[in-house]
Amino acid sequence: MKFSVTVTLKKDVLDPQGKVVQQTLQNMGMKTLKDLRQGKYFEVDINENDEKLAKDKVDEMCKKLLANLIIEDFKISKL
Amino acid sequence: MKFSVTVTLKKDVLDPQGKVVQQTLQNMGMKTLKDLRQGKYFEVDINENDEKLAKDKVDEMCKKLLANLIIEDFKISKL
Repeated sequence: MKFSVTVTLKKDVLDPQGKVVQQTLQNMGMKTLKDLRQGKYFEVDINENDEKLAKDKVDEMCKKLLANLIIEDFKISKL
Repeated sequence: MKFSVTVTLKKDVLDPQGKVVQQTLQNMGMKTLKDLRQGKYFEVDINENDEKLAKDKVDEMCKKLLANLIIEDFKISKL
């Protein structure tokens, strides 16, 4: 069972890496670009047939390793 | 208008960074984890009311900077 996980910085946390990408794009002529924020993305494949159990496992992975809950949020979706 | 962009490695491209995350999770006891691949995630805000034009702009950003089309695929979704 495959899930996608996106980890994003909470909205009040500064994102210097995203700002550099944003400025680079703007310098390349993308004048309509208003804001850009960067995050992390994972595709997780779990050996588990029960969707609820599999999702709980992914949730546990996010909390233990993939996301830093002090500054980041995460979202899990089934693929 | 906000879009999310996910950039993932093509399936035949090795993902050493993802492998390290996978092995770490497995060493932490996640025995049901079969595979994990890492990608990039961006949230892009565009000053443009026409959805088609805005999406074309994001597509251009991906092709010019955000993704390396030789080894990566990208997907754009409206938020």
